[in-house]
Amino acid sequence: MAKFETIIKNGKIVTADGGFFADVGIREGKIVCLAKRLEDGEKIIDASGKLVMPGGIDIHTHLDTPLNGSYTLDDWYQGTVSAACGGVTCVVDYPKQEADHSVRDIIEKWKEKAGGKAVVDYSFSPVITQYNDEVYREIPELIKEGFPGYKVFMAYWHRIPDHELVKMLDVVSSCGGILGVHCENDWAADYMIQKLLAEGKTEPKYFPMSRPALLEEDATSRAVKLAQMVDGNLLIVHMSCRGAIEIAREARAKKNNVYVETCPHFLVLDDSVYDQPLEEAAKYVVTPPIRKKEDQDALWKGLISGDIDLISSDHCAFPYDDKIRMGRENFSTIPHGAPGVESRIPIVFSEGVNKGRITESRFVELVSTNPARIAGLFPQKGTIAVGSDADIMIYDPELEVTLSKDQMHSNCDFTGYEGMKVKGYPVLTMSRGTVLYENGKVLAERGHGKLVKRSTFQRF
Amino acid sequence: MAKFETIIKNGKIVTADGGFFADVGIREGKIVCLAKRLEDGEKIIDASGKLVMPGGIDIHTHLDTPLNGSYTLDDWYQGTVSAACGGVTCVVDYPKQEADHSVRDIIEKWKEKAGGKAVVDYSFSPVITQYNDEVYREIPELIKEGFPGYKVFMAYWHRIPDHELVKMLDVVSSCGGILGVHCENDWAADYMIQKLLAEGKTEPKYFPMSRPALLEEDATSRAVKLAQMVDGNLLIVHMSCRGAIEIAREARAKKNNVYVETCPHFLVLDDSVYDQPLEEAAKYVVTPPIRKKEDQDALWKGLISGDIDLISSDHCAFPYDDKIRMGRENFSTIPHGAPGVESRIPIVFSEGVNKGRITESRFVELVSTNPARIAGLFPQKGTIAVGSDADIMIYDPELEVTLSKDQMHSNCDFTGYEGMKVKGYPVLTMSRGTVLYENGKVLAERGHGKLVKRSTFQRF
Amino acid sequence: MAKFETIIKNGKIVTADGGFFADVGIREGKIVCLAKRLEDGEKIIDASGKLVMPGGIDIHTHLDTPLNGSYTLDDWYQGTVSAACGGVTCVVDYPKQEADHSVRDIIEKWKEKAGGKAVVDYSFSPVITQYNDEVYREIPELIKEGFPGYKVFMAYWHRIPDHELVKMLDVVSSCGGILGVHCENDWAADYMIQKLLAEGKTEPKYFPMSRPALLEEDATSRAVKLAQMVDGNLLIVHMSCRGAIEIAREARAKKNNVYVETCPHFLVLDDSVYDQPLEEAAKYVVTPPIRKKEDQDALWKGLISGDIDLISSDHCAFPYDDKIRMGRENFSTIPHGAPGVESRIPIVFSEGVNKGRITESRFVELVSTNPARIAGLFPQKGTIAVGSDADIMIYDPELEVTLSKDQMHSNCDFTGYEGMKVKGYPVLTMSRGTVLYENGKVLAERGHGKLVKRSTFQRF
Amino acid sequence: MAKFETIIKNGKIVTADGGFFADVGIREGKIVCLAKRLEDGEKIIDASGKLVMPGGIDIHTHLDTPLNGSYTLDDWYQGTVSAACGGVTCVVDYPKQEADHSVRDIIEKWKEKAGGKAVVDYSFSPVITQYNDEVYREIPELIKEGFPGYKVFMAYWHRIPDHELVKMLDVVSSCGGILGVHCENDWAADYMIQKLLAEGKTEPKYFPMSRPALLEEDATSRAVKLAQMVDGNLLIVHMSCRGAIEIAREARAKKNNVYVETCPHFLVLDDSVYDQPLEEAAKYVVTPPIRKKEDQDALWKGLISGDIDLISSDHCAFPYDDKIRMGRENFSTIPHGAPGVESRIPIVFSEGVNKGRITESRFVELVSTNPARIAGLFPQKGTIAVGSDADIMIYDPELEVTLSKDQMHSNCDFTGYEGMKVKGYPVLTMSRGTVLYENGKVLAERGHGKLVKRSTFQRF
Repeated sequence: MAKFETIIKNGKIVTADGGFFADVGIREGKIVCLAKRLEDGEKIIDASGKLVMPGGIDIHTHLDTPLNGSYTLDDWYQGTVSAACGGVTCVVDYPKQEADHSVRDIIEKWKEKAGGKAVVDYSFSPVITQYNDEVYREIPELIKEGFPGYKVFMAYWHRIPDHELVKMLDVVSSCGGILGVHCENDWAADYMIQKLLAEGKTEPKYFPMSRPALLEEDATSRAVKLAQMVDGNLLIVHMSCRGAIEIAREARAKKNNVYVETCPHFLVLDDSVYDQPLEEAAKYVVTPPIRKKEDQDALWKGLISGDIDLISSDHCAFPYDDKIRMGRENFSTIPHGAPGVESRIPIVFSEGVNKGRITESRFVELVSTNPARIAGLFPQKGTIAVGSDADIMIYDPELEVTLSKDQMHSNCDFTGYEGMKVKGYPVLTMSRGTVLYENGKVLAERGHGKLVKRSTFQRF
Repeated sequence: MAKFETIIKNGKIVTADGGFFADVGIREGKIVCLAKRLEDGEKIIDASGKLVMPGGIDIHTHLDTPLNGSYTLDDWYQGTVSAACGGVTCVVDYPKQEADHSVRDIIEKWKEKAGGKAVVDYSFSPVITQYNDEVYREIPELIKEGFPGYKVFMAYWHRIPDHELVKMLDVVSSCGGILGVHCENDWAADYMIQKLLAEGKTEPKYFPMSRPALLEEDATSRAVKLAQMVDGNLLIVHMSCRGAIEIAREARAKKNNVYVETCPHFLVLDDSVYDQPLEEAAKYVVTPPIRKKEDQDALWKGLISGDIDLISSDHCAFPYDDKIRMGRENFSTIPHGAPGVESRIPIVFSEGVNKGRITESRFVELVSTNPARIAGLFPQKGTIAVGSDADIMIYDPELEVTLSKDQMHSNCDFTGYEGMKVKGYPVLTMSRGTVLYENGKVLAERGHGKLVKRSTFQRF
Repeated sequence: MAKFETIIKNGKIVTADGGFFADVGIREGKIVCLAKRLEDGEKIIDASGKLVMPGGIDIHTHLDTPLNGSYTLDDWYQGTVSAACGGVTCVVDYPKQEADHSVRDIIEKWKEKAGGKAVVDYSFSPVITQYNDEVYREIPELIKEGFPGYKVFMAYWHRIPDHELVKMLDVVSSCGGILGVHCENDWAADYMIQKLLAEGKTEPKYFPMSRPALLEEDATSRAVKLAQMVDGNLLIVHMSCRGAIEIAREARAKKNNVYVETCPHFLVLDDSVYDQPLEEAAKYVVTPPIRKKEDQDALWKGLISGDIDLISSDHCAFPYDDKIRMGRENFSTIPHGAPGVESRIPIVFSEGVNKGRITESRFVELVSTNPARIAGLFPQKGTIAVGSDADIMIYDPELEVTLSKDQMHSNCDFTGYEGMKVKGYPVLTMSRGTVLYENGKVLAERGHGKLVKRSTFQRF
Repeated sequence: MAKFETIIKNGKIVTADGGFFADVGIREGKIVCLAKRLEDGEKIIDASGKLVMPGGIDIHTHLDTPLNGSYTLDDWYQGTVSAACGGVTCVVDYPKQEADHSVRDIIEKWKEKAGGKAVVDYSFSPVITQYNDEVYREIPELIKEGFPGYKVFMAYWHRIPDHELVKMLDVVSSCGGILGVHCENDWAADYMIQKLLAEGKTEPKYFPMSRPALLEEDATSRAVKLAQMVDGNLLIVHMSCRGAIEIAREARAKKNNVYVETCPHFLVLDDSVYDQPLEEAAKYVVTPPIRKKEDQDALWKGLISGDIDLISSDHCAFPYDDKIRMGRENFSTIPHGAPGVESRIPIVFSEGVNKGRITESRFVELVSTNPARIAGLFPQKGTIAVGSDADIMIYDPELEVTLSKDQMHSNCDFTGYEGMKVKGYPVLTMSRGTVLYENGKVLAERGHGKLVKRSTFQRF
């Protein structure tokens, strides 16, 4: 057996399946051997007392993009450095199709933005905003080329009409893709917004009332029923409330075509965040809104029971000034979004594993394995297995860190978690055998990351 | 005590509440006395061995109206004669607002159509098809004038957008009205229709596949959630499937703002009716489609458990020739509708009471009392009580009749129940003290019926 | 028409069905006429501005009885005076079969206790404690004789084994009876009690933990499933928690053989009552325990939605001293029970009708009509209809009263509602045409009440 | 790196997590290396075109045991040979505690039966039949010694009373064990049996009516509620019906303390099997009974959705003659049980994986990984990972086999699957590196199997 380029020794390997003690032999960017006591390596990394886990995969980010009348601060270099420092080794971004442009156009545009900058591997799941023949022709081709994921919005100006939603589910799924859907009934939210504003209710505390859980439940139910009708592959993104979990659970009991994502902010915050002055409250203006304590509890139960499949960040790093300025007179014009790609894994580990809610294996499944399965990246990524990419994070389960804007690496000038203490933190992040981050130091080389060709989606 | 104009003697009075033996004293069109052994009457009707029940109320008809590219055959004389012969003493019709016309316009037009013709009392619940400021101004006025019911469609070309649906629920309910909603996701049905037609599937047997129960469930869920958001009064018209019942049941367990109607055809037919040649199948093309046997069972359970509140006919008497001609090459262009105002009560009594599924009191509640409550007609109509209108049907629970087009009185040239045997039939129908129908003879005078001013809606 | 003995004039008659203005003519203890402007009466009662409703019916009391090592204080005179002063005109008591005695024996014993004392009409629904051939022979006979109701306990020393429960459901129901079941898994409660006591947890605040809602849910589910198996008529007595409501709702959606009772204390109190010193907390020790606020909310929703059918008092007037003395060292030996027959109707009216949760008609249904239906007393009692007993309460919906031990008429030396303000109170109670109570004065004659022969149970 | 004793080359490794191509290096009975292109092995097994999966684990068998008045035919040699030939490398048997004997006694007795005979590794999960202090003292000790699983029956003469069930859940779980429960309300079944027999209904077709799904639902609900009360670890064994799945699903959405097992016969048979003469029907008399087609569908959905965790055989090889003889006059005395340890894996693979219902990974999870997790055997067994036992089955997914009594290796003289065709079959079974079975040949050495010390139970 040939010499290994790198060996990770003495750690506890954790996969979605379980944990075991073995060394990891790496060659040409791949895991080539898992064995007891490997020795013949050019480079030896000692992981004694640490967890050796597949690198985090974040399939819900918005890097370097104009949105909601503002612009996200992280370009593909800084955004992926931030990701790597948070244990993430692959990012799938949601670029939005531009008016009078094809889907391929936005992919090409994003290739240019990311290429030569990204430090972790990446791909894109385009947000479709036009529903025309060309789009329906492009999608099957693009799926074949390695882009099996798409997203549509039931919210915002480009909200998809129901007949296009059912067609999109049908077309995407019949070609081996999966469709992410932002589930909120935006038309009804508009009515509530206008009603509240007309009553002079302009402060952020009215924001959650303007988009109540009922509207997410309605849209979730609709997406689920339409997916059932055409046997479509549906990913419900950023689920936030108990009612929606129940709707998805009922659907999943009948057929395994519906998948559910949630985000860290829904797991550790509740709607009391909006009951503050604009300067604080604006940080938490995201959609769907952060819900009640009972919804938070329901999300944790869903993570434990398996009703929820994955946790993504919905990283959307708007400038703080824009949030404040645009929200002064009207809660509804605050850009919806906040950063999170770097804090996702520490928060979920700390609140999930270290608080005894979920096992280490379930943690890996939620932040790496299932995102990989959904994105068509598995088993190339998302696990520690022979033949997989050597995308690995080494994790110190005892390391205590206080989260802050300064301690993290995003260009964003605020975080909703300022001062939050977490226990457990990544100490090393490796992409295809190359160390990107180690013990607080960024070693990543600009442009190390590559576009990954993804497989078609397989139900699991 | 003054002399009575009419006394109904020796019958068993049945109300939603129970049954008891008493005589009914009538004066000036009102029930003025319920007592044992009344004697001093100008006219005595002997109801020995019969049931004395409040006249049937049918709050879902489409008389004398252009619809779906065809035209319904019953004008207000023949349609209400048909009603009276089926035990019905009040009809609330659904006239559809015309393009570039106000809601008041359609009410005025309908007043003209009905006035001088109708033989039973009547009112109208306009179908709103335009969603503009004028409409939202008119509705509060019209509610005050005695028109508390409206309807909108989530289907067809005039399907209501969600933001208008929520506004309509809000406006109608806050002024004491109730909004009927036809719950089917029509955009998605369109997709299925086009898909089936493109595959050459043009026969009526594909009709139910083109509008599956999933689409009714989706729309029902949406209507229910939006009504919850604005605390709106919602009537779900012609519910047909198990899933929708469950959705409504869950909502009703939380708040009593949602009411549910079904129709006789859903209770005695199943989707095997579509598996016939066009000549037969076309008779049953209605929306929602007639569902599976398990849905039929669920509807009966809902009637028994109280999950369903009322049964209406959805009487819509299209010419048979139109149904056949327009359906030759395409199931989707068959006009959706069939007659039923005369057969409703005999079918529900025979299949419900005489087959032991529901009590006599529950029967009265479903076909008279609850329709009256929902329409704002109670307690003027819908019960046998002192002070109520003397709208009464005398029913022979043992009389056996074979339903047929010829035996009934509608202008329509077909019935979906040809040859069906029922046990129990009205033998006398009385409107405000005047006998309209007795033992097979029509005594009704053209124009006897009056427009009733209805009260605002009260939850029950 | 002959002269009336009594006429109640100018009131608003309220039945389960609705409300209307009419006068009530009474002769020989019966309602013989409902009409506008009756005049020819020996006695005229003016009910202007008042509600004229069927007298309350309380089918869950424990009068003059040894229980839980103590003895209830109200004999049949004082207990029924208390009832009458609270608007109640009929009581159905639960006497418990004695060891080595037949069911008939306990009925005979109770006839002696009640005869010559009771001021309102009455009957008994024996609690079966022995499950032997004689009992199964007696029940069909006793049902024929007018005793269609029985009760068994899934709690306490005489808890019924499952095979006897299913047999009892089968035997009672097949003969036209209905079986009340106290649903708590007492074996499991015993385990919790012993565990808590072993940990030194002896104060009343541990009482609710010793009998958690889970145990009521389990027993409710069991009773419901067994009743489904043999198509039995099941009355779930004193339901207290959300989970049990959901279980019953699911069952009722399938078949109308399950009926649900709750009690006023579950509607206005929550488990914080146990978080007080023994002297206060002991007053609230009843089974099932008073539950959480969310259960209280669920019960009100169940009353509104129709998931709950009736409200009874579970009047069980233990001496205060016994409660304190027996509870000093052990929460589990406090006699389980409290008085309530007089406060039931004012509390439900005040919290239900006057707070806008339920309509007047629904109130009548819950405290009179449905209890009458379940007990086989309808339509003789439980409604204002021609031919029914003139059991009537005249109610002032505006009268404000502060509840207290002194203001009420039970022999019991405490009430759990001391100082509670209610709006709406009975001003006159009439039994078979005889006034028992009027404006604070007791006019009842000892022994006026009679044993009523009840009909077999009919599902509704 | 030292030489391997065995290398499995060129196969596709499948774990619960996913699949990948790698070679497996084995030394001293352990998997020590997973790598591409291993070469230095004493023995090379070529698995080209085959699946390399963890050996099956069957945690529900009844070997060499007196039961139901009969005796199971398979001793520990023949029973485990049968297991090995069906891809099984570990068996956990359910020996039943004997009257007046301790739990340790039955373990010791079973050690003697199995020792020197078993060809695969094994352990025992004692069935507790006495509920006394000694038992509650023994269990914590035995858990420490490596016996974390126990079972109790809510059916049969030794059915556990509720207070002991809750205590058992509490004691077993607080020491790191998990309690299997046979969920049927047997008292109620007794009533149905006697009722049916009294009506002369003695043939096997009445067997399913005597133990309807309602009784499994009731018992499942009870077990779940009691487990919730004491936060106990509950394994519901051999779940058979839709209602029970729903009950468990609701519970699991709240807390991950409930685990669900089903069996192959419930997945491929329906209750029409009982509608045959005794000679055929008796083969299928097992408890719970085989249910309706809709229950079968629900079980498959539960396997797909994750609502069901594992599939065991409930292997219970009664002599055919006993089944017939004891059932001649009474369906209820037919011994309840049938063989299945050898056919389990081929049936689940063929009907599950090859019919496209579940993935290969899910298959592994259901028949090996989850049984290992539940039994405290993971990660020593139940996966292909470095450090795990080399318990491996090599599977030909295309091999077609017709199941029959003669083709299988149990001593049992019948199989319920005679003539059933399956696609996919084990071609090699290895226990700790030793080949037990290869291409139809039994190579197993009597007594190769060892008692495994199991870990405490960890929720997953």
